[in-house]
Amino acid sequence: MRESEAARWLLERDRFLILTHVRPDGDTLGCAAALCAALRQKGKTAWAAPNPGVTETYLGDIQPYFAPMDYAPEHIVAVDIATEGLFPDALAPYKGRVELCIDHHPSNSGYAQNTCLDASAAACGEIVYRICRDGLGTMDAEIARSVYLAISTDTGCFVYGNTTPTTHRIAAQVMEYGDFFREINRRCFQTKSRKRLELESRLLQSAHYYEEGRVVIGGVSLADMAQVGASEADSEELSSLLRQVEGVQAAATLRELAPDQWKLSLRTDVDYLNATDTCALLGGGGHAAAAGATVSGTDREGMERRVLEAIRTVLNGR
Amino acid sequence: MRESEAARWLLERDRFLILTHVRPDGDTLGCAAALCAALRQKGKTAWAAPNPGVTETYLGDIQPYFAPMDYAPEHIVAVDIATEGLFPDALAPYKGRVELCIDHHPSNSGYAQNTCLDASAAACGEIVYRICRDGLGTMDAEIARSVYLAISTDTGCFVYGNTTPTTHRIAAQVMEYGDFFREINRRCFQTKSRKRLELESRLLQSAHYYEEGRVVIGGVSLADMAQVGASEADSEELSSLLRQVEGVQAAATLRELAPDQWKLSLRTDVDYLNATDTCALLGGGGHAAAAGATVSGTDREGMERRVLEAIRTVLNGR
Repeated sequence: MRESEAARWLLERDRFLILTHVRPDGDTLGCAAALCAALRQKGKTAWAAPNPGVTETYLGDIQPYFAPMDYAPEHIVAVDIATEGLFPDALAPYKGRVELCIDHHPSNSGYAQNTCLDASAAACGEIVYRICRDGLGTMDAEIARSVYLAISTDTGCFVYGNTTPTTHRIAAQVMEYGDFFREINRRCFQTKSRKRLELESRLLQSAHYYEEGRVVIGGVSLADMAQVGASEADSEELSSLLRQVEGVQAAATLRELAPDQWKLSLRTDVDYLNATDTCALLGGGGHAAAAGATVSGTDREGMERRVLEAIRTVLNGR
Repeated sequence: MRESEAARWLLERDRFLILTHVRPDGDTLGCAAALCAALRQKGKTAWAAPNPGVTETYLGDIQPYFAPMDYAPEHIVAVDIATEGLFPDALAPYKGRVELCIDHHPSNSGYAQNTCLDASAAACGEIVYRICRDGLGTMDAEIARSVYLAISTDTGCFVYGNTTPTTHRIAAQVMEYGDFFREINRRCFQTKSRKRLELESRLLQSAHYYEEGRVVIGGVSLADMAQVGASEADSEELSSLLRQVEGVQAAATLRELAPDQWKLSLRTDVDYLNATDTCALLGGGGHAAAAGATVSGTDREGMERRVLEAIRTVLNGR
């Protein structure tokens, strides 16, 4: 379904409930908030389904749109949700009931009755922006800030490789509607929790470098987590840290998930090392540039040595 | 002088030398490279003055444009240089000889015969972009990538508060000319030296928090620098790190510059603490949100206490 058709579909109906995905990010939440605001401008009743996984970072953006307990929707819309497997548990009752899915994931399973998909969009927020502005004919500061939240977070503030000229063009257009970008940028891209910073510090201290600095292996133990008092949220995406080190082309991050059981996350420059092939040697898998495996062992040195051996086996097999 | 007049001025002349500022950043270097490329497209001879301060990050961007030893320019142009005090030592002979200065600093001293200034531009690169595209009628992949380097680095990849809709619009336009942004983003925003990361780690480990986490004081000693083997470049802008800590509204970073002599950098949320007032109590000065002072002392604890006392004096005087 094209964006104009999706807009017409929305205009012909009323009483919407908008679903967001599990472990919600700024894109799914920003899309839900923007769509709610736009539909309300058109005189519709629209709410976002309460998503219990919303972190403190985004709570203020979406909570005002959370549907009241007794809301009885007539039409279910999903934003940025590629498959029903990504529904939060609380939204399981809506499986098989989504009438319109707006998404940018090429892997979208087609679970909805109608799917409005643009896999070239860096963020689902780009599609929602066009539906709101061109299709519904609505745009104001509130819609604009939610679109900005969506596209800025899904591109790491325009730094990731998925960013396109269109992403920047939409950013320029929505920024004309209000002075919201400074607060969003500060909150989403320029703030780190103390616990997060302490975990990063410990991970860096633990790092050992090999192959003239092209390979790095580091880890965070359960003891580290306990001493820092860190939560799972504090340790999210830790594996991207070592990949940032100058000269590093393969970064292996070990996280102890249960006593003596470690999760290996391997991030690589694919021209240097295939991450999938390496993790396969340790019983895992993934993508060429980002793969993982579960590694057991009480002896941390020995475990690191096994990871290094797997890396060297693939390096030497090139 | 307006941008169209600056372009006409350039078109009527030939044999240019383009100057960049001391401790050159991506903006001044990107502007020089873009202007050289555009002028050459118009059949002109144009070179950038060799700037010995260029770091490895930007060397590949500007070195191909460095003038040969025996180049005899007829016209001197400065880009992104607010005052002659910001000329690199090697360019001191050009003081009083700049005929055209293109700049975005409101503090520009007007040292050039002609100044093309737009203080609303996030980067000087925005002005150079318009001069190249609209004034000279030139744009290609090489000019575009240099403009992208300029505007992305001066906005921290579109995250700083100086970013405007115009910045995003220009990013969108130049990105249409080639696939250079991924390499630039990775190099400039997603890579840190090991020594830099080790310094950050030590700074975070040294941090003490006060006032329910709103105030943080941390430091890097000469011993830290020596043990890490870090250079001045590795320690640049370290003071922004502690400011990122969640909940922090005043971040004081102490750097030992000479034995027992420390440079205090104070970064604050101006609604919480005036940085200038605080640093004035320690004999320093600066801006409301970013100020500094020199603090002497062998006793690090005592020195931190003096900084904390100054902060508390200003806090209590509100």
